Amino acid sequence: MRNAQDKKAIVLLSGGLDSATVLAIAMADGYQCHCLSFDYGQRHRFELEAAARIAREAGILHHTIAIDLRASGGSALTGDTEVPKTGIQDMIPVTYVPARNTIFLAHALGWSEVLEINDIFIGVNAIDYSGYPDCRPEFISAFETMANLATKAGVEGTLRIRIRTPLISMSKKEIIQKGISLGVDYSKTHSCYDPLPDGRACGHCDSCRLRKKGFTDAGINDPTRYAHNTQ
Amino acid sequence: MRNAQDKKAIVLLSGGLDSATVLAIAMADGYQCHCLSFDYGQRHRFELEAAARIAREAGILHHTIAIDLRASGGSALTGDTEVPKTGIQDMIPVTYVPARNTIFLAHALGWSEVLEINDIFIGVNAIDYSGYPDCRPEFISAFETMANLATKAGVEGTLRIRIRTPLISMSKKEIIQKGISLGVDYSKTHSCYDPLPDGRACGHCDSCRLRKKGFTDAGINDPTRYAHNTQ
Repeated sequence: MRNAQDKKAIVLLSGGLDSATVLAIAMADGYQCHCLSFDYGQRHRFELEAAARIAREAGILHHTIAIDLRASGGSALTGDTEVPKTGIQDMIPVTYVPARNTIFLAHALGWSEVLEINDIFIGVNAIDYSGYPDCRPEFISAFETMANLATKAGVEGTLRIRIRTPLISMSKKEIIQKGISLGVDYSKTHSCYDPLPDGRACGHCDSCRLRKKGFTDAGINDPTRYAHNTQ
Repeated sequence: MRNAQDKKAIVLLSGGLDSATVLAIAMADGYQCHCLSFDYGQRHRFELEAAARIAREAGILHHTIAIDLRASGGSALTGDTEVPKTGIQDMIPVTYVPARNTIFLAHALGWSEVLEINDIFIGVNAIDYSGYPDCRPEFISAFETMANLATKAGVEGTLRIRIRTPLISMSKKEIIQKGISLGVDYSKTHSCYDPLPDGRACGHCDSCRLRKKGFTDAGINDPTRYAHNTQ
C-alpha cells in the first residue's frame, strides 16, 4: 500500500459548481490534486477563469489543455446554435457536446500515466443532470475498463486507473450541502452556459435553472450574480 | 439497411504506411471516407504533410485536429527523449505516447456523431507493431463498448459505432501486399519517427525497421528515401 502522502489525483475542473465540489471532496479525502481544464472554444469562458482562480486559491497545480471541439461542431455550447432557455426537457439537449467527457477523460488518462496517478475525479451527475449520456454510471464503468487496457502502466500493472465520480448519485441539493460543509465558496464558481459580457449568469439556461433550484432546495442563499431577478 | 451510397466512414490517417492502406481498404469496400489527422507536436511532421497529400490526391475530405499531447509529455515521439535506434525490443518502447489512440478515437467519436457515421477505421496492428497497448484487440473492443454508451446517437439507437481495424491481424508483409494490390503508392507515405530535415527516413528507428522488413518479406521494392543505405 502507498502512504497517505502518495495519494494523488487528477481532478477535471471546469470551474463550475460540481467540479469545485469534487475538488473539495478529493482534497478532504487526503489527495494531492492536479487539476485539468479544457479550453474547447466554449461560449462560457468565464468557467475557465473560475477554474484557474479556484485552483490558484487552493494552491494546486492546474493545467489547461486547448482542444478544438468546434471542428466537429454540433452543439449550442460551442456556438453553433442558440442556448435553449425554456426549461429542462426529457430529450438530450442541443447543449450536448459530442463525446465531450470521452475526450476529456482520454486526455486525463494520458496525464495520469505520465504523473503515475491512479485516480481521476470527474464531477458527472446522473440525477439532476441535463440528460447527457456520458454522465451515466454505465459510461463511466466502460471508460474505466477501456482505460486499464489502453495504457502501458495498466498493462504492466503499475497503475490501476479509477474514474472517481463522488457526485454521480447526488442531487444538486446534496452536492451544494456537501460543498458548503467542506467550505466551498460557490460565489467563485461559474455555471451559466450563456453569461453576459460582465460574467453575470443569464438565469434561464438549463445550467442556471439546475443551480438555482439546488440552492433553493438546500435552503442556502445562492451567491450567483444573475442578470436580473429570475426567481 | 442503408444504400451503398450511404456507406460512410471516418478514417484515421496519420500519413504512414498502415493508415494509407486502411484508407485504400475502406475505399475499395465502397465507403465514402472522411479522413482525420492529429497534429500533436510530433517530431515527424512529414507524416502530416503525407496525410494531407494522400487525402487530396484521393479527393477526400480531410481534417486535422490540433491537440497538445506535449502537455503530458512522456514520449520520445513528442521530443522529450531520444528516439531509440537499436532495434525492436520486448518491452513497451519510449516512443509510446500516453493514451494516444484513446485520445484519437475519442475525437473521431465526436466527429462520427456529428456526421452520423457508424464506422471508424484505424490502422492498428497487433502483430508487427511496436508493443503499444492501445493497438491490441482487447483495447479496441473495450473502446467500442464505451463509445456506444458515450454518445447521444448510441443511446438513441440511431448510430452503432464500430471501430474497424482491418490490419489488426496482418503482418507488415501482408499489409504491404494488400496495399499494392489496391494501388497504394507507398512512396507518398511517411513512417520514420526521426526523419532528416529534407524528409528522408533515418532507416534506424523502429518504424523504419518494421517498414523495411515488410518490403523485404513481401519481395517488393521499398520506395522509401532513406538517409543512407541501411539494408
